[in-house]
Amino acid sequence: MQPNKNLKQQGLSDIEHLKVHGRTTGSLSPLTLFWTGSAVEFNARGSELWIEFEVDYEVYEPWIGIVINGAAVSRQMLVAGRYWVCVFRGMNPDAVKNVRIVKELQAMSGDPGCTLQIHAVKFDGEFLPVEDKPYKLEFIGDSITSGEGTVGAKAEEDWIPMWFSALDNYTAMTADALNAEYRVISQSGWGVLTGWDNNPNCNLPDHYEQVCGLLAGPKNEALGAFQANDFDAWQPDAVIINLGTNDGGAFQSPEWRDAVTGETRKQRLLEDGTYHEEDLKSFEQAVSGFLAKLRTYNKQAHLVWAYGMLGIPMLPAIYRGVDAYVRETGDKRVSVFQLPNMTEETVGSRSHPGVEAHHKAAKELSGYLQEILRQV
Amino acid sequence: MQPNKNLKQQGLSDIEHLKVHGRTTGSLSPLTLFWTGSAVEFNARGSELWIEFEVDYEVYEPWIGIVINGAAVSRQMLVAGRYWVCVFRGMNPDAVKNVRIVKELQAMSGDPGCTLQIHAVKFDGEFLPVEDKPYKLEFIGDSITSGEGTVGAKAEEDWIPMWFSALDNYTAMTADALNAEYRVISQSGWGVLTGWDNNPNCNLPDHYEQVCGLLAGPKNEALGAFQANDFDAWQPDAVIINLGTNDGGAFQSPEWRDAVTGETRKQRLLEDGTYHEEDLKSFEQAVSGFLAKLRTYNKQAHLVWAYGMLGIPMLPAIYRGVDAYVRETGDKRVSVFQLPNMTEETVGSRSHPGVEAHHKAAKELSGYLQEILRQV
Amino acid sequence: MQPNKNLKQQGLSDIEHLKVHGRTTGSLSPLTLFWTGSAVEFNARGSELWIEFEVDYEVYEPWIGIVINGAAVSRQMLVAGRYWVCVFRGMNPDAVKNVRIVKELQAMSGDPGCTLQIHAVKFDGEFLPVEDKPYKLEFIGDSITSGEGTVGAKAEEDWIPMWFSALDNYTAMTADALNAEYRVISQSGWGVLTGWDNNPNCNLPDHYEQVCGLLAGPKNEALGAFQANDFDAWQPDAVIINLGTNDGGAFQSPEWRDAVTGETRKQRLLEDGTYHEEDLKSFEQAVSGFLAKLRTYNKQAHLVWAYGMLGIPMLPAIYRGVDAYVRETGDKRVSVFQLPNMTEETVGSRSHPGVEAHHKAAKELSGYLQEILRQV
Amino acid sequence: MQPNKNLKQQGLSDIEHLKVHGRTTGSLSPLTLFWTGSAVEFNARGSELWIEFEVDYEVYEPWIGIVINGAAVSRQMLVAGRYWVCVFRGMNPDAVKNVRIVKELQAMSGDPGCTLQIHAVKFDGEFLPVEDKPYKLEFIGDSITSGEGTVGAKAEEDWIPMWFSALDNYTAMTADALNAEYRVISQSGWGVLTGWDNNPNCNLPDHYEQVCGLLAGPKNEALGAFQANDFDAWQPDAVIINLGTNDGGAFQSPEWRDAVTGETRKQRLLEDGTYHEEDLKSFEQAVSGFLAKLRTYNKQAHLVWAYGMLGIPMLPAIYRGVDAYVRETGDKRVSVFQLPNMTEETVGSRSHPGVEAHHKAAKELSGYLQEILRQV
Repeated sequence: MQPNKNLKQQGLSDIEHLKVHGRTTGSLSPLTLFWTGSAVEFNARGSELWIEFEVDYEVYEPWIGIVINGAAVSRQMLVAGRYWVCVFRGMNPDAVKNVRIVKELQAMSGDPGCTLQIHAVKFDGEFLPVEDKPYKLEFIGDSITSGEGTVGAKAEEDWIPMWFSALDNYTAMTADALNAEYRVISQSGWGVLTGWDNNPNCNLPDHYEQVCGLLAGPKNEALGAFQANDFDAWQPDAVIINLGTNDGGAFQSPEWRDAVTGETRKQRLLEDGTYHEEDLKSFEQAVSGFLAKLRTYNKQAHLVWAYGMLGIPMLPAIYRGVDAYVRETGDKRVSVFQLPNMTEETVGSRSHPGVEAHHKAAKELSGYLQEILRQV
Repeated sequence: MQPNKNLKQQGLSDIEHLKVHGRTTGSLSPLTLFWTGSAVEFNARGSELWIEFEVDYEVYEPWIGIVINGAAVSRQMLVAGRYWVCVFRGMNPDAVKNVRIVKELQAMSGDPGCTLQIHAVKFDGEFLPVEDKPYKLEFIGDSITSGEGTVGAKAEEDWIPMWFSALDNYTAMTADALNAEYRVISQSGWGVLTGWDNNPNCNLPDHYEQVCGLLAGPKNEALGAFQANDFDAWQPDAVIINLGTNDGGAFQSPEWRDAVTGETRKQRLLEDGTYHEEDLKSFEQAVSGFLAKLRTYNKQAHLVWAYGMLGIPMLPAIYRGVDAYVRETGDKRVSVFQLPNMTEETVGSRSHPGVEAHHKAAKELSGYLQEILRQV
Repeated sequence: MQPNKNLKQQGLSDIEHLKVHGRTTGSLSPLTLFWTGSAVEFNARGSELWIEFEVDYEVYEPWIGIVINGAAVSRQMLVAGRYWVCVFRGMNPDAVKNVRIVKELQAMSGDPGCTLQIHAVKFDGEFLPVEDKPYKLEFIGDSITSGEGTVGAKAEEDWIPMWFSALDNYTAMTADALNAEYRVISQSGWGVLTGWDNNPNCNLPDHYEQVCGLLAGPKNEALGAFQANDFDAWQPDAVIINLGTNDGGAFQSPEWRDAVTGETRKQRLLEDGTYHEEDLKSFEQAVSGFLAKLRTYNKQAHLVWAYGMLGIPMLPAIYRGVDAYVRETGDKRVSVFQLPNMTEETVGSRSHPGVEAHHKAAKELSGYLQEILRQV
Repeated sequence: MQPNKNLKQQGLSDIEHLKVHGRTTGSLSPLTLFWTGSAVEFNARGSELWIEFEVDYEVYEPWIGIVINGAAVSRQMLVAGRYWVCVFRGMNPDAVKNVRIVKELQAMSGDPGCTLQIHAVKFDGEFLPVEDKPYKLEFIGDSITSGEGTVGAKAEEDWIPMWFSALDNYTAMTADALNAEYRVISQSGWGVLTGWDNNPNCNLPDHYEQVCGLLAGPKNEALGAFQANDFDAWQPDAVIINLGTNDGGAFQSPEWRDAVTGETRKQRLLEDGTYHEEDLKSFEQAVSGFLAKLRTYNKQAHLVWAYGMLGIPMLPAIYRGVDAYVRETGDKRVSVFQLPNMTEETVGSRSHPGVEAHHKAAKELSGYLQEILRQV
């Protein structure tokens, strides 16, 4: 192999034209990608491009997808270490390639050592400006929004990064259909009030203000994950909240007990199998409260609670929670949208919605958002 | 990252149970994968598996796909060097995973330096036997069969490995639908008589007897590419020949001239745009001749000439060539099958059939083969 | 033509085995079919079957569909008069045919002269018992449920019976998917509180107790349309209410004025385009009230408010109305289900959902009902 | 019912603007529709239209379909007698409706009494000119082309008119996709050489020159069925011949014996299940001969032998027959096209291709014809 002698190394912060997707601290030396769907994007005129990653983890390794001119061309595991990955080579040096390097794995609250960073590129051409897209979308969700189950055989049961995808995902598909850029804030097993296991700490709202507040540990702190997010820098046209599935699951799960304090928590079922009124009320208040918080940080965005890919048991309560918020505030830019349910034909791995279920959800959701965005 | 201390390194030749797909020399130390779709397959009971590759090329880098329990989970470029790639980690150590590491790129006749080898594995479990599938298929073809254009945006024009795929390919899909193992012998731009550019050396029949005879150079010779193929070791139930597209193109292309000898060659068009009778006859004889050769090496296989994904101009001549062979030999196990044409909706990159065109072809072809294989 | 001499005429009331679908007075001499989807069903062992219709109207002629062994084979206009229509002939006399003669047109509140009656049959065989299906469904709705727009070119604008269908309809498709028998109570332009034009008389709840109370005139009175419906005779497992689309339209339509009393009515829009709180409240009370009435007459049925094929502006209010009813009564067998929205590809004639939109709605709705009916 | 007093009766021959589809004698008083897919077409500006039919048969009754503005709105059996059928009523009198009344049933060689005639119309408006479409297609075929099996449940086995359709048919769909007018010459069970039962009289070529020569009896003679067809009046751009399926069946069927002369006929199978060379040759000569005859009458048309919806056993012989014709004549405007095979999912009634199989065939065939017609 003859190495390409025209490759020039540049730190990310030295590149004039690039675009970062997803919440970050703003640092480019290096760039830390926290959330699934976060990415770095280039318009690259040249023949060969490499990216220098630095990766670590205790348990769960990150994966990336590579998208060239809108088409996914590669998806790979990133093992621990600092090394170069070739994005493309041998291409026409005069043609401009739009390139996105996308994090396929969600932020991992359960692995404080899991990090994915980009230091530099090697390239034999020049980078051109990346234009803004007409719309901005923010998705907030759980395992469905993290794309858990969109990769792998139906029989798979291990909870590992391999089965997650940001690209085979209704978030990416919806953004694509609407020609929008997007961000994702998501965590498997979490809810708006509690996690699937009644753990009250596993709620997205508590961490919304931080760059990536659901992470833990000194390493993430040093990376800036707990800094205040700069909301002014990126105001979405719509925020899609796909939460409630784990809150519903909590009613069916055993009591949660804090290993340290012994504190317990349980969303209760009545004997006839229906939800305890009081606990349902707590959920509704969590819905209302999260909307209020979202409005604080997103002044203009339409807030769409989108739910239903794994059944709709919480939908009446979601409606009540949204309704209560609207009545209190007079906010007219809020709505609820029911997503199509997964079927036997569209199930993926780990009993989660498969890629066809995501396609269907994206089709319905993008049709709905189209109407709203026209009015923005 | 804490390394997995249970990983044990083994040379491929030391592994009791594994299965190699595609023509090889038989050597496992290392294993050289020549053809697209060639692969190594394991039934692996353990939590973490790595593969040691050795890769080189002058121009065109190989790519691999990873298939776990029948689902494609990764696809990546392999740059030059000798290194380890992690196939999976963190999985349930007690569950058996069926794993296939598949070469995504065709044998590269134009790059004598292009090699992909597998030396060893690191694994923390045990390998179990890989059962044989009920059928064996061999596909022989050109760029269509090499999956050129099944990856990438429609606008792509560079001739690079990135746009090739063995998995997003009618060959893999057909084998899958029939629960068959399969091999592929294919080369972009080649034909049964000449290449698209009238080059008479670019024909598949001349190299059929060798392991991978269309390669060139001392390196490939040393790797055994020019050895006689061991046909006894693997007798297919059906051989599918998807050739003729480039032979048809030759009529529309300029004369070929040998740079060294000055010898020229041209499949001629008449003034009214139809094919010169004599040259068409040569094509038909090449068809007949190839069938005769295929029968020599594949005593029982049904021979199916399957053609049509990029138009059917050569189909009458193919029928005549097949007919002539049948009349001369009395061989009843030969037929022609027209594949569905690519449409505007199913075109992929580089004006080649896209993944939807391959799905459609596989659906029709597997339906047809099903009938034949029932009678085998 | 040689007439079939084996045909024997029988009044409908003389036939031992037949099944009537849809609300009727119970009379079979003749049988009056009021609602769309109402039908007479036979298991007929014989070669030739004729039906004697009596039809009249001032403006709108009825249409019928003929279904044999589950497949729609004919659809035709029935002009005024009393005459025989051949259902089948020349069939194997020994085979049993399941035959349904289905009214394709809704009850026509705007045409007091529109009637469709069946007097008798001519048949050369014997009728066998028609078995009950495992489930019973009742659909209540507006033009969508009447199948307006499922027949005809997109450009059609006339409001005529030709564009209506009971068979190309989500009601029939849903019942089919669930192997259920079904009834339809529907009227184009009507709502749960008012019609699309604010007419407060155009609401379905006021007429629910009668056999077909939305009709008018002495002729319909004589036919028994205003009699009390015999609810004990047919108790559904689920009632699907697809109302709200015209109630939503009323907010956008001019004030309604009673030509006689001068009384006016208007669901008001605020200046910012949102709904007047008071009027929305009236709608919600109409929703609650209708559920209460439905429960009075359907003791065991699951009540599903299914809405969304032409947008979801009233969905929050529907949820509030349902919620209020549930809170007041403790009734647990009530839910709301959002139907998929019509898209540009699925629009039919008269800007109404086309047959593809109905297929999609039926797929989602039947998946949802399946879960509920399993628990019945 | 108040009759429409504005209706005016006109004999068909008195109408200035109308278009007749399908081969006829030219007579309009009355118009006899012989073939499936034959039709009368109007551009009618008015509110109400009736058609006067005269129908008779000994065994098999005709059916019609009604198409308004390109959408099928009605399909009904026509019983024996002379009577009026209402096509539409209550429509906007100022809008122009394109109306086609289409014969759904093939010409019935087995029922010399089967006739369908149109005498007159009653209309309250005026007829406008019907424009020619850019292309003309002629289809020649057997039961597949007659649409046998596109209506009715899979289990149906009776051979009756109800299961035939001209509209749910690849012929109509292909013409529609290409914006072409079309004619159909077809007969269930017939071939290019013999019928499925080896009957040598059941071949289409022998009757090609006549208006509808495969009919029998003095009644059809009086109607002009045996007159010479006026080929000059309608020259197609392409003739699609879908024959061979019954010729293939003949090899599998018992010997045919003429009840009168005792003459026998049999396409022979060899002991190994392959076709007797001599008989296959006869078939090939029939193919060549039919092409020669078609060319005599259709000077410019592209001749496309399209075959494969029920398997492809005769395809090699068809290719040889076509090839022989081309070699003898030098005719370049001839080709063979393989249609997609019926699958388990696309089977209709009577084990024939269902409507989905016809859709698929039309999609492939129209794509192929598009290329050819562009060059016309």
